[in-house]
Amino acid sequence: MSLSETLQEHKEELLSALEEGRRDTLDEQLPELRAADLAEILEDLLAEDEGVETVLALLDCLPIERRANVLGYLPGEEQLALSEAMSDETLLKVLEEMGSDERADLFNLLDEDRRESLLRRMARQEREDLKRLASYEEGTAGAIMTSDYVAIPCGMTVSQAMMRVRQTAPDAETVYQLYIVDRDGRLAGTLSLRQLMVARPGAQVDELMIKDVISVSVDEAQEEVARLVARYDLLAVPVVDHEQRLVGIVTHDDAMDVAESEATEDIHKGMSIGQLEDGVSRVPLWSLYRKRVTWLVLLVFANLFSGAGIAYFEETIAAQVALVFFLPLLIGSGGNAGAQAATLMVRGMATGDVGVKDWGKLLGRELLVAGSLGLTMALAVAPIGVMRGGEAVAMIVALSMVTIVLFGSLIGMCLPFVLDRVGWDPATASAPLVTTLVDASGVLIYFSIATAMLT
Amino acid sequence: MSLSETLQEHKEELLSALEEGRRDTLDEQLPELRAADLAEILEDLLAEDEGVETVLALLDCLPIERRANVLGYLPGEEQLALSEAMSDETLLKVLEEMGSDERADLFNLLDEDRRESLLRRMARQEREDLKRLASYEEGTAGAIMTSDYVAIPCGMTVSQAMMRVRQTAPDAETVYQLYIVDRDGRLAGTLSLRQLMVARPGAQVDELMIKDVISVSVDEAQEEVARLVARYDLLAVPVVDHEQRLVGIVTHDDAMDVAESEATEDIHKGMSIGQLEDGVSRVPLWSLYRKRVTWLVLLVFANLFSGAGIAYFEETIAAQVALVFFLPLLIGSGGNAGAQAATLMVRGMATGDVGVKDWGKLLGRELLVAGSLGLTMALAVAPIGVMRGGEAVAMIVALSMVTIVLFGSLIGMCLPFVLDRVGWDPATASAPLVTTLVDASGVLIYFSIATAMLT
Repeated sequence: MSLSETLQEHKEELLSALEEGRRDTLDEQLPELRAADLAEILEDLLAEDEGVETVLALLDCLPIERRANVLGYLPGEEQLALSEAMSDETLLKVLEEMGSDERADLFNLLDEDRRESLLRRMARQEREDLKRLASYEEGTAGAIMTSDYVAIPCGMTVSQAMMRVRQTAPDAETVYQLYIVDRDGRLAGTLSLRQLMVARPGAQVDELMIKDVISVSVDEAQEEVARLVARYDLLAVPVVDHEQRLVGIVTHDDAMDVAESEATEDIHKGMSIGQLEDGVSRVPLWSLYRKRVTWLVLLVFANLFSGAGIAYFEETIAAQVALVFFLPLLIGSGGNAGAQAATLMVRGMATGDVGVKDWGKLLGRELLVAGSLGLTMALAVAPIGVMRGGEAVAMIVALSMVTIVLFGSLIGMCLPFVLDRVGWDPATASAPLVTTLVDASGVLIYFSIATAMLT
Repeated sequence: MSLSETLQEHKEELLSALEEGRRDTLDEQLPELRAADLAEILEDLLAEDEGVETVLALLDCLPIERRANVLGYLPGEEQLALSEAMSDETLLKVLEEMGSDERADLFNLLDEDRRESLLRRMARQEREDLKRLASYEEGTAGAIMTSDYVAIPCGMTVSQAMMRVRQTAPDAETVYQLYIVDRDGRLAGTLSLRQLMVARPGAQVDELMIKDVISVSVDEAQEEVARLVARYDLLAVPVVDHEQRLVGIVTHDDAMDVAESEATEDIHKGMSIGQLEDGVSRVPLWSLYRKRVTWLVLLVFANLFSGAGIAYFEETIAAQVALVFFLPLLIGSGGNAGAQAATLMVRGMATGDVGVKDWGKLLGRELLVAGSLGLTMALAVAPIGVMRGGEAVAMIVALSMVTIVLFGSLIGMCLPFVLDRVGWDPATASAPLVTTLVDASGVLIYFSIATAMLT
């Protein structure tokens, strides 16, 4: 992660103030920086020698609340490194001020002993809340939700609810969406602060609330949560347990983060790269190797089919070595068109634009588009065929191009649907996989046409 | 776009109620559907024969406000088709109730004559506002912003501001973030409704407001706006003109939509597909062809370098035709590793995880990872080399594999940085482009090694 120039300047000023013990400069500079920006500076410092000491010294100049806030913007690994260098007492104070979702995430990174020792020092309710939030499986709504929401009991009046909002304002993640719960804690309805503000003070929240609430279960996949927030333009989505009890909310900003990391995951998957636990510049090398090697080696073996095809046609090749000239071009073109077709389908399925039911219609469209693409590319390559080997070779190459591009596009287009059908992730139809499959079929198509036309 | 089963049921009920003229069923069913869901049903209906008439009949059963709301969830083309079938009078009413950003988008799709005729019927201020919003270039902050925000003049007290919020609540896109403007309309600060609610009623907003506001210029790129909203967890970001006057806001939900469509664009670009104006299942065939063909044809010519390499080594090939067996495998493997490396860099640069400054460090990392990948793949392919052509061929193939994978990965890793350096979009380093470049180098590496070792 490289710092922008402005942040670099800030970093240097902070460092020199810290070295020279100019506390007043620090007190002046630090509050001016936004949490996300300060976190970026700290992350950069942590990569240096003795970074942990420097960063802790800087954090010490901040009030606890802001310290917790900045910490929340750091990646997990960095949070852990800093936590390990803090005393139990300081860490407890910081944890207390963090958002409940971030607190649970950090807690999960700590080692067993540290967790036990911290839990022992906590008040009972705080302990239960933390243990509960920390228990949800990663990638679920439970793991990204916060318990800092405003719950309003059924039967409250508008003015009582307003009072409750004012009281909760400093701690809640959002006060703009209120959740009405019945006596058993079950989600009964929702009300926006906007509606509350224009309502008659004596009215009961039950009369005003929207009863048909969009909510998710604690074990719902996080990408589904993000999709709901995007689809219905929500500020936050409530999370309920299996008894419909309200247990948390996922706010729009966390949903946006999920959407971004899901997009990254999809992009990587499209190139047969497994899910990385961190950014590419920070993930351990061993992990990067493992996430890339699996498919690369599998595809080496898949590529043997191309080799087998070539071995089968060795006589044709030996008789007309000039044919090899066009081999990379033809199979490469088919692979490119196929990878395009697969990518369009996979992304369409991920965003909800394409459904399995649309397969028939899309097949017809792809036939037309791929046919036209193949013809265009055949026209482009035909003159080269004439130049390299005369009209016969040009015919072979042009005919192969149309067939390979058409066939490759159809493989690319259909593979995501087939994978989805058998219960796999359609995104497994990555560019490398499609390219490899198309390579093998391309070899067969090209040399079959050549053998037929030359003999 | 295929409908989920629940929506399909709703659609059929609505249709039969409409046919049989059961207005009471419609009045009961329609309000139960969320705008986004109803829009999906309508979109599905519009694809059928006489869809426009059916949809207009359904829309007629809704109050104008909801009609405008549902319309806003439809894709542009569908909005246009419906607008064209509405009378000026109805369309005017609907436009009036739409969010100002959606109104401007729809207005821009209408033809010249219709626009003129609508403008003539509008009040002056409304007309000016619409013309202004409609004038911003697509893809900029100006084009996605709304003018329905809450502006509070400097000098107002907290209680006056609260009154203003209550008055504006029904029309504003968000009332949760307030913007304080000076006498010339310049953005002076911002205040959250949360802060306002807990403040002393007699205090002035100027004392409370945050002066260091994150804002964007009207001509800022929309992806940059989305990035700011995500980075600083904003509810909305204010948009200012070149004199720092507040002209609009971009809300979190619109920023999330932008982030999604930017991710789609990046994914498509990664496969050398140009920017589509609509989902893959809906975009016109001609457009889909055009957006795919450019690079495919360019790459046909780029692939000629591979052919030229092969032509140069024709003697080696003729002497040892068995070498062709490994050609697709070797260049395919290099292409896959290279495409992975390029994708990791391009996505890292898009999310801000990787900066141009990190190039050196990342080069070192890639050398290590790609070297290990190459060795692993060489070990996988070596036994096949022994089987097909003995130890000499196995050595050639294994050595070529390491070299090609290493070289391919380096090309893939460096290309995005080089493109960025010369002012191009790093995402131009697509999988097909990298694969094609690596193919050509792979041919040269393989046959050079073979020629050297066999003679």
